[in-house]
Amino acid sequence: MKAGNPRRKGNSMDERLQKQLDFSLYIDKEKNILRQTHLSYGGRQENDAEHAWHMAIMAYLLAEYANEPVDVAKVMLMCLIHDIVEIEAGDTYAYDAEGLATQKEREDAAKEHIFGMLPADQKEALTALFDEFEAYETAESRFAHSLDNLQPLLLNNSNEGGDWKAHKVTAEQVYGRQKKTALGSARLFEVTDRILKDQIRKGNLPEK
Amino acid sequence: MKAGNPRRKGNSMDERLQKQLDFSLYIDKEKNILRQTHLSYGGRQENDAEHAWHMAIMAYLLAEYANEPVDVAKVMLMCLIHDIVEIEAGDTYAYDAEGLATQKEREDAAKEHIFGMLPADQKEALTALFDEFEAYETAESRFAHSLDNLQPLLLNNSNEGGDWKAHKVTAEQVYGRQKKTALGSARLFEVTDRILKDQIRKGNLPEK
Repeated sequence: MKAGNPRRKGNSMDERLQKQLDFSLYIDKEKNILRQTHLSYGGRQENDAEHAWHMAIMAYLLAEYANEPVDVAKVMLMCLIHDIVEIEAGDTYAYDAEGLATQKEREDAAKEHIFGMLPADQKEALTALFDEFEAYETAESRFAHSLDNLQPLLLNNSNEGGDWKAHKVTAEQVYGRQKKTALGSARLFEVTDRILKDQIRKGNLPEK
Repeated sequence: MKAGNPRRKGNSMDERLQKQLDFSLYIDKEKNILRQTHLSYGGRQENDAEHAWHMAIMAYLLAEYANEPVDVAKVMLMCLIHDIVEIEAGDTYAYDAEGLATQKEREDAAKEHIFGMLPADQKEALTALFDEFEAYETAESRFAHSLDNLQPLLLNNSNEGGDWKAHKVTAEQVYGRQKKTALGSARLFEVTDRILKDQIRKGNLPEK
């Protein structure tokens, strides 16, 4: 991954750097966006920034299980920035049908405003990476989505399915989302399936 | 950055994957390690995982200001993992002389135990990356340290120096640490110096 290398002249670098610093401070707000997932072994609610950090490290550790070869650095950065729009669009729970209906519109407006704080080249790069994640069409995107599914599953598994219980989610709903993990990694979907079957057997996830 | 590509035979992959998943779940604990820094504009205390996420994105955005060309992906991963040892060694505040005296011993034990949960090749890779960060000898390490300094400075600047006030830290102490930012990025040290002079002028950071 190459760093940006813009032409620098006069005060343009100062303005460029100021934009980058303003954006860096602004995204601090992502630490206040709470997810429905709880931290392992009975912890508090997780926030988006922690979730993204966790996914990015898992991207590095588990890249060998992607169905297709992936650019690990690209997956990591995709994981790190994939929820930034939620600073303004809010977190939409995976099983909230009403929220999901308006999610794209809210996230598009947030994307334009937040990435628009950056210099044009970096706005373009991060917007493209976010759009690639959303489009689910590249190996990197599919693998990043596998991690977006697996990371909260590991936490929820340690909590005996507490997040599913709180929202009265069924195995049918969970499989509906988690089966897409197989598009990015057949091997990680085997893990997913094993965890879900185990939680169903324990009575923590009703079949219907 | 290349993903690991171990030979897979018999049950060895299962054992390998299980180790990777156990480690992934274990590092969830980093979200409970609190720093002395507070989130922007009067927020709560920051935790290590959020700090690492923030640094990694800043690494990507600000890499053009590193004194020497850096492998951005390597800096990002270094940022993501640099505080994992604190899960067992605890956070040591930058101006806590007593804590700093025992920091290395505590962190070495934690490093061996935590990275030791991983398959040997990944244990070796992350240990080497952590050691490289600590040694301050490569361009990537020096730039990662610049970010480790600048990220909390941006937050504390938004909080009118509240973290310094709480710990009765002087400008002399802060400069003692922050001047090392210049080793990784002269340009980011200019930003640092501007912020510190401004906070001194406002009376938020006493000179001595």
